[in-house]
Amino acid sequence: MAAGVTVSLDAMGGDEGPDLVIPGALRALTRRPDLRFRLFGDEALVKPMLDEHPKLREASEFEHCEIAVRMDDKPSQALRRGRRRSSMWRAIEAVKTGDADLAVSAGNTGALMAMAKLCLRTTAGIDRPAIAALWPTVRGESVVLDVGATIGADAQQLFDFAVMGGAMARAVFDVDRPTVGLLNIGVEEVKGLEPVREAGQRLKDADLSNIDYAGFVEGDDLGAGTVDVVVTEGFAGNIALKTAEGTARQIATYLRNAMSRTLMARIGYYLARDAFDRLRVKMDPRRGNGGVFLGLNGIVIKSHGGTDAEGFATAVELGYGMVRNGLLDKINNDLTAYSQSRPEPETDVVASAGAA
Amino acid sequence: MAAGVTVSLDAMGGDEGPDLVIPGALRALTRRPDLRFRLFGDEALVKPMLDEHPKLREASEFEHCEIAVRMDDKPSQALRRGRRRSSMWRAIEAVKTGDADLAVSAGNTGALMAMAKLCLRTTAGIDRPAIAALWPTVRGESVVLDVGATIGADAQQLFDFAVMGGAMARAVFDVDRPTVGLLNIGVEEVKGLEPVREAGQRLKDADLSNIDYAGFVEGDDLGAGTVDVVVTEGFAGNIALKTAEGTARQIATYLRNAMSRTLMARIGYYLARDAFDRLRVKMDPRRGNGGVFLGLNGIVIKSHGGTDAEGFATAVELGYGMVRNGLLDKINNDLTAYSQSRPEPETDVVASAGAA
Repeated sequence: MAAGVTVSLDAMGGDEGPDLVIPGALRALTRRPDLRFRLFGDEALVKPMLDEHPKLREASEFEHCEIAVRMDDKPSQALRRGRRRSSMWRAIEAVKTGDADLAVSAGNTGALMAMAKLCLRTTAGIDRPAIAALWPTVRGESVVLDVGATIGADAQQLFDFAVMGGAMARAVFDVDRPTVGLLNIGVEEVKGLEPVREAGQRLKDADLSNIDYAGFVEGDDLGAGTVDVVVTEGFAGNIALKTAEGTARQIATYLRNAMSRTLMARIGYYLARDAFDRLRVKMDPRRGNGGVFLGLNGIVIKSHGGTDAEGFATAVELGYGMVRNGLLDKINNDLTAYSQSRPEPETDVVASAGAA
Repeated sequence: MAAGVTVSLDAMGGDEGPDLVIPGALRALTRRPDLRFRLFGDEALVKPMLDEHPKLREASEFEHCEIAVRMDDKPSQALRRGRRRSSMWRAIEAVKTGDADLAVSAGNTGALMAMAKLCLRTTAGIDRPAIAALWPTVRGESVVLDVGATIGADAQQLFDFAVMGGAMARAVFDVDRPTVGLLNIGVEEVKGLEPVREAGQRLKDADLSNIDYAGFVEGDDLGAGTVDVVVTEGFAGNIALKTAEGTARQIATYLRNAMSRTLMARIGYYLARDAFDRLRVKMDPRRGNGGVFLGLNGIVIKSHGGTDAEGFATAVELGYGMVRNGLLDKINNDLTAYSQSRPEPETDVVASAGAA
């Protein structure tokens, strides 16, 4: 591979397809000139756009794909229609063959995860991949996983999520030994779910060199940034993520309504508009755009399907940073180092009914 | 019982005890002059405060209790120390004996639920109570349950939560046939948890006269107010509630920082201060204060332990409104009416490991 970072892109993913992906790639390239792209998609749509941007065209290799996975395809449908020949599959496969350092798609999450698992396989010692999100906090950002790859997790899977999330925090933040918390609730006698308690005990006993285990955290610790990494199973994680997004939108609506209600408020808004702009940047969901698939033999990033060029560029640059900082090596090294502290596999499962 | 509404109060509950409860009761009484109170607590602390407020003293009967349940008591500890003789127990017992229409405590949630279950017992046909919260939305408010009474729920329990939440919405909102959604995640092939899907099928089949079943909702539908009632099990519900609270605090911090950063922003803030006050009221967590215990033979409301007099008064007035609107009758009528549509009990459980 070249000295730069090569990103394979599913040009057909997302609500807008190439109209999102091409301008997004262009933005990322402008800021990171050593980026190279491998683009997969419909020639008739993508080629004309590339011709408009010679700089991007020069940095890219393009391959035509007949099939585009639809946003509402079920994973099984997507695999049936698109295995080996869809733009999504080919983008992932480029990571497997070493033609790209990572893949980015704004396509549908279930299909992307199903294809990534099938094509790249899980890392040795990991039986379940997770989706990690960068969560904006009052202190900066935290890594939160799993935000929706799978429903339920046993103690060992939560332990593995902690290790992988810790490695991601080291690759993305400037921190040597990130703090890690397990998401739990405090109202039960037993202090929450059994697998969560068991995972907490294992993390405490293992006393890992690259992770500072900080105990249980609750939902309000997410926005407070109490720890660098928050570990949970995918059902609660997905609900937390969407609840936070919804709350941010809700408050933005309140704010807009309040500021447009009287003349005085509108004047005040005008004078303070720089401050409001700063606030808008802080609350911008595009800043944290990109769910990172962890636990696979390769990096795959899911961009929001409804984002814009800036949001897509953010997802590409997140991957760029992780490749530069050796995310996969960090994960594999940690998993190997900690394999001694992992007990025998067991079977307690949070949600046996939901396990995929 | 008198024509007014009688509320029994655990005067020792919450971080501040009587310093929270007495001013809170006074506020509620000022706005609802037909309120009557039965107060339970430490004579040495409560009596002098009552003597300062003759109006409240006249509206109240006081009973001395030796024991106060501590905020960090485990439920089992609280029962051991405080059964039959703590201020918390006695406040609940007043509902059982008919001396009060409802009980309010700002004491610890686990202890309050344990005592309420033991003293009041669950309503016929209900095997698990839930805690319902009033959730502020861009459209107004929604009822969300369970926000933390118990981890996990099977399909029948979720169905019962829907019936009870619907009855609460009818008692609290001006709506005849509230819309009800089941909280779920959308990324899995199977579209979320098995018990959630099963509960959805049952609600669809039952076609209840007092509930408009609206299907699955996701985390971001909470703040959007997509439905009047959102049903979930207690682990995900508690995490969603705390995540939303944390996100609101986080954005308030962003806003404060942004508005104090430059002179222009401070001037703008000053001019728009009425608008900011309105926003503060909208975002005020005291507005939705009060977790309502549903599924018991009596109404018990949990106020936040760290709230202030206004927040505590809100919890009292929430209960006042529910008594006035016949919440328990609505729940019991609906449960009876729908008992035909309830299939035989079954055993699929979300989190068998965590079920208390």
